Amino acid sequence: MSCVASAAPQIHATGAPRVLVAGATGFAGALAAHLLWRHPDFELVGLTGRSETGRSLEELYPRYRVPLSIEPLAPARLQGLDAAVVAYPHAAAAPAVGELRDLGARVVDLSADFRLRSLATYEQWYGEHPRPDLRAQAVYGLPELHRREIADAAIVANPGCYPTASLLALAPLARAGVVEDVVIDAKSGVSGAGRAATEKTHFVTVDENLNAYGVPRHRHIPEIEQELAILGADVRITFIPHLVPLDQGELVSCYVTLSEDAVDPGSLEELYAEAYAGEPFVELAAAPPGVRDVRETNICRISVHRDERTGRVIVFGAIDNLWKGAASQAVQNLNLMLGLPEDEGIGVTTSAERRAVR
Amino acid sequence: MSCVASAAPQIHATGAPRVLVAGATGFAGALAAHLLWRHPDFELVGLTGRSETGRSLEELYPRYRVPLSIEPLAPARLQGLDAAVVAYPHAAAAPAVGELRDLGARVVDLSADFRLRSLATYEQWYGEHPRPDLRAQAVYGLPELHRREIADAAIVANPGCYPTASLLALAPLARAGVVEDVVIDAKSGVSGAGRAATEKTHFVTVDENLNAYGVPRHRHIPEIEQELAILGADVRITFIPHLVPLDQGELVSCYVTLSEDAVDPGSLEELYAEAYAGEPFVELAAAPPGVRDVRETNICRISVHRDERTGRVIVFGAIDNLWKGAASQAVQNLNLMLGLPEDEGIGVTTSAERRAVR
Amino acid sequence: MSCVASAAPQIHATGAPRVLVAGATGFAGALAAHLLWRHPDFELVGLTGRSETGRSLEELYPRYRVPLSIEPLAPARLQGLDAAVVAYPHAAAAPAVGELRDLGARVVDLSADFRLRSLATYEQWYGEHPRPDLRAQAVYGLPELHRREIADAAIVANPGCYPTASLLALAPLARAGVVEDVVIDAKSGVSGAGRAATEKTHFVTVDENLNAYGVPRHRHIPEIEQELAILGADVRITFIPHLVPLDQGELVSCYVTLSEDAVDPGSLEELYAEAYAGEPFVELAAAPPGVRDVRETNICRISVHRDERTGRVIVFGAIDNLWKGAASQAVQNLNLMLGLPEDEGIGVTTSAERRAVR
Amino acid sequence: MSCVASAAPQIHATGAPRVLVAGATGFAGALAAHLLWRHPDFELVGLTGRSETGRSLEELYPRYRVPLSIEPLAPARLQGLDAAVVAYPHAAAAPAVGELRDLGARVVDLSADFRLRSLATYEQWYGEHPRPDLRAQAVYGLPELHRREIADAAIVANPGCYPTASLLALAPLARAGVVEDVVIDAKSGVSGAGRAATEKTHFVTVDENLNAYGVPRHRHIPEIEQELAILGADVRITFIPHLVPLDQGELVSCYVTLSEDAVDPGSLEELYAEAYAGEPFVELAAAPPGVRDVRETNICRISVHRDERTGRVIVFGAIDNLWKGAASQAVQNLNLMLGLPEDEGIGVTTSAERRAVR
Repeated sequence: MSCVASAAPQIHATGAPRVLVAGATGFAGALAAHLLWRHPDFELVGLTGRSETGRSLEELYPRYRVPLSIEPLAPARLQGLDAAVVAYPHAAAAPAVGELRDLGARVVDLSADFRLRSLATYEQWYGEHPRPDLRAQAVYGLPELHRREIADAAIVANPGCYPTASLLALAPLARAGVVEDVVIDAKSGVSGAGRAATEKTHFVTVDENLNAYGVPRHRHIPEIEQELAILGADVRITFIPHLVPLDQGELVSCYVTLSEDAVDPGSLEELYAEAYAGEPFVELAAAPPGVRDVRETNICRISVHRDERTGRVIVFGAIDNLWKGAASQAVQNLNLMLGLPEDEGIGVTTSAERRAVR
Repeated sequence: MSCVASAAPQIHATGAPRVLVAGATGFAGALAAHLLWRHPDFELVGLTGRSETGRSLEELYPRYRVPLSIEPLAPARLQGLDAAVVAYPHAAAAPAVGELRDLGARVVDLSADFRLRSLATYEQWYGEHPRPDLRAQAVYGLPELHRREIADAAIVANPGCYPTASLLALAPLARAGVVEDVVIDAKSGVSGAGRAATEKTHFVTVDENLNAYGVPRHRHIPEIEQELAILGADVRITFIPHLVPLDQGELVSCYVTLSEDAVDPGSLEELYAEAYAGEPFVELAAAPPGVRDVRETNICRISVHRDERTGRVIVFGAIDNLWKGAASQAVQNLNLMLGLPEDEGIGVTTSAERRAVR
Repeated sequence: MSCVASAAPQIHATGAPRVLVAGATGFAGALAAHLLWRHPDFELVGLTGRSETGRSLEELYPRYRVPLSIEPLAPARLQGLDAAVVAYPHAAAAPAVGELRDLGARVVDLSADFRLRSLATYEQWYGEHPRPDLRAQAVYGLPELHRREIADAAIVANPGCYPTASLLALAPLARAGVVEDVVIDAKSGVSGAGRAATEKTHFVTVDENLNAYGVPRHRHIPEIEQELAILGADVRITFIPHLVPLDQGELVSCYVTLSEDAVDPGSLEELYAEAYAGEPFVELAAAPPGVRDVRETNICRISVHRDERTGRVIVFGAIDNLWKGAASQAVQNLNLMLGLPEDEGIGVTTSAERRAVR
Repeated sequence: MSCVASAAPQIHATGAPRVLVAGATGFAGALAAHLLWRHPDFELVGLTGRSETGRSLEELYPRYRVPLSIEPLAPARLQGLDAAVVAYPHAAAAPAVGELRDLGARVVDLSADFRLRSLATYEQWYGEHPRPDLRAQAVYGLPELHRREIADAAIVANPGCYPTASLLALAPLARAGVVEDVVIDAKSGVSGAGRAATEKTHFVTVDENLNAYGVPRHRHIPEIEQELAILGADVRITFIPHLVPLDQGELVSCYVTLSEDAVDPGSLEELYAEAYAGEPFVELAAAPPGVRDVRETNICRISVHRDERTGRVIVFGAIDNLWKGAASQAVQNLNLMLGLPEDEGIGVTTSAERRAVR
């Protein structure tokens, strides 16, 4: 891949591309650090954070077993960086992306800062954009939709967790041009609420509880609508997220009204099978997927059903919100950007592949 | 109340109506026994079960502290019974209801056997009805919709848990005649799956998991549609239940498409406030309710929201599936049937009432 | 609140003693407010807090349904108070107790400030005592051990949750003078860690986790040793608490080495049965108790076992840490202090009592 | 390794040793199958089960993604097998081990059948032994204690989960000859109770609950005592397991009375550091370990503390009961037996190792 080759990442002792995680103290950044630390083809050279500086990640997250320390983001010390994952909150992310771009690093940004093609839409949902000048370098990082652009991009805007599951669940129908209306009822584990200790993330608040939040204007809406429109479904969606008492896991239940007589009921499963043939991280199931099926994997597991009584199509998509919804998808993007095998370091080798090898 | 008076329940030593719980080994029956054992105005005279006979309920459910033993249903021993709660599965319930009716007892039946007005609909969803002859004596036991009929009924068909929450969430809109389409995404704790120990209720299956089930034809659908039609919304609903890792609690998220320009956005809250003024067990909230807010109460907590982007109305209803969704609603019905204060023995005195008293 | 200021306690319309909860924003204080709001024989006249002032308790804890607002503690406005529950942290509690005593109110203090008879011991574990002058007025508020003194006390030091369960589990052996050594392995739900949102109470930290804390010097140790010594067991205990992923519930597993040939193995259960005969809130069980058995009750459920292989006696005690371990025990103490029936307002009428009545 | 070489496992097409999992339907067997399916140096050639035959493991455990089907154990079809993991219940395991031995396979047995050196002890705790003739071929499979014997053994008796954590926690003290008395308070997640759906594993029984079980004679006792005696601590232990509401994870809290003046308090940590220097799967921590720290790893995380007030030493050991407590430890043993790197296929590369490499 030419642009990668020209960035000359191979001149290091180990020969592996050098990567940084900026914002490694949060849940997604810490997991990205864990995955990259164990990745056979990357050298994780540093972790930054806006707090906890001086502490090792191992101390903050014993189970990730990454002994590197959190440092302030200091570009001067980061010469020779090939790539970076930025896991700062929106608005704080864009300036960091800019600094890392100045160093020549290619960046996967987990924030919303570079996800929206329309600046007006960004401003409407998030306020002023801190680095609009960088927007032209960015592509939307859902590999199953934009694999080719990601490979060549300087900045990859890693999708939100809800958009990841929702778009993978809806893409085949959107592409077929048959979507008239969509309601997405989404449910997420508590890690999706982030590391900040608040009344909302207190165990006693969440345990044995269940409620909707962000009603009715959650910020993942424009992102989903943007990508659905690109695919062929120019609709206004109803999207409501709920918090459920579990750690990692996310389920979207998508209720789709089709344009009349749009799809032969018998062909729904075929449509999905064709759409995702060969995709290493999309799994189709006959029964509604459980989030446990995909826990700590980069897999999105999908089932599609038709309600004959109403004609509505119901699609479920299950992911691990911290993995495919954030950190492992970032690694998937890094693999694509650096010309590595797409599943390197995030591979639950799926059974089909394993069988093929043997 | 004349029909009660004529049943001569007051001739007992304690003066309290004598009540039986048939099917006390299951979750709902056991809770009904617990509530009636502590109820100031009932005398709980017996518990029956199709299994566990000879064991005390205290042994099966220590926390309910009911020392009565489970017996087979033996009508000969049950003379002088005023009322009964039947908590058998559908099809097994109707014959038991018949035996209890023969004894002169008025019955609250927790099964689906007497919920549907149309025999054809019953047969379509449940198969042959075991006692169609009794159907004429039954009324649908959602007190907030049918309080008056319940008071005089010989058989009260206690609603399903999902219909209870869904109908309370939707009734004001249905009555206003503005409902064009409804999607109900429902989420329930595991107690809703019943006491049977199966792979589906194994802790390891459910913990950290989340999935839809009964897709797309759950048996609570006809019951919801029947009552919505009576209220004024003759629609086919899309209804999908999900299992969440908690014990007791149920949330319905209702996505309602209104007939065009049907409701002034500003008047939604007013519509609900008027509909539920004076209802002791319906609570309106500004924020989306959590199931923890209603845990171990007979309360349904509701919030209503309008999505200005799509025009859709979103209504949330939270209940405790074992309480308002089953056992405490049965007691509420018994109270109405026997002429007792509606909240006797199931009273979290709501704050409003308490304040009024002072 | 003028009506409060002007009112002398016993001359009210309702005739009920007037009670205040100071520190109602925390878990224990809020539950105490809930229980007192519903208590048939108290009038809850105010709630204070060091934060959240101006908000209603209903807003902070919807499920408690107490519409009173949090106010600063302002003695001038609190004339005519009969009693108070103080739920401030240690060191902050004693001054508040002092202010309330100056108003003539009798006080149940949930902090550790008045639990230790020895000032030296207090200072060793907690530092300087803010109001040593008040110590002479206080008695240790475990009703099962000190019922008589509590009835007459001006200040009742409500026991810690761990001491409550541990002392009830060990008292019969301690009184029998046969305790040589004790290890207490305690496990508590997360509500025991309090309302503060920290990394330790974050759902993602606690969920699917389990660990010891406070090793090896937890502050409940001197309190347990003090009371064991009074009972007859002058031992140094080993006490280690653990945090388990549940909300409310606490189990102590006590491993007791007896003095040689101290107790006839066959008489252990008899010893416990005699010790707790007539106690309304102690329940003896043959099988090890589960915390679910006592959830949201004022009951301590105990089982005692002898390991024939080692001669050791093992005693389990289960309570709800927020109820018997804090708030409902405070109400039990208030009932005793004000001459009310001991179980008024906190009564799961136990089955034995209920049966006796009938 | 001579005995391995002589078993000639390398003559297959893939060159990898061929391995079978007998009893792959249970939690431990299924995980062993998952780990071996992904293991770079084994070829998983079959799965057997006493139920569910004909179904694929993928269907039973979607998250393990092993497409092989469950078959009856049919030795005729299993020629050329190098090794097997047997995950049948005790008494059912020994005959299966025998059949597999007859085929020349080396076996790791997860049951208790070959753990006890004394036949009399086995019979006392488990009843008659089904294949006492095989006992001489077996060694106790805790690699950290018996690495050398395991490498050469025909049958390796994989330790119980509680013994694994307890022995690793206690071994350094036992070897030092300073253990006078031990109380082990153990806590396990529900997966330890196995796949059988019973009242005890029903979500509603376990959720928000916590209780001891198997009091006071749990079958893991003789196994712990046997190995402690070999190490140098010939004591009768008190061992009580508890069930906690989580899936995978186990914590042992060991309360050790030392022989007088046995260990210099300052040298405890040193003792442990020396004992476990170089052990790939034992991690020493300063703070009490949480089970989350070791979830889905083969690691045992240990902390040791001295209570100065009582002189007692407290040691905590945390493992994942299905991994180090069963399946991944079986793979660790297989690696040793077949001369592979000990951490192959179960390697969370620990951070220390990773750092060393770089």
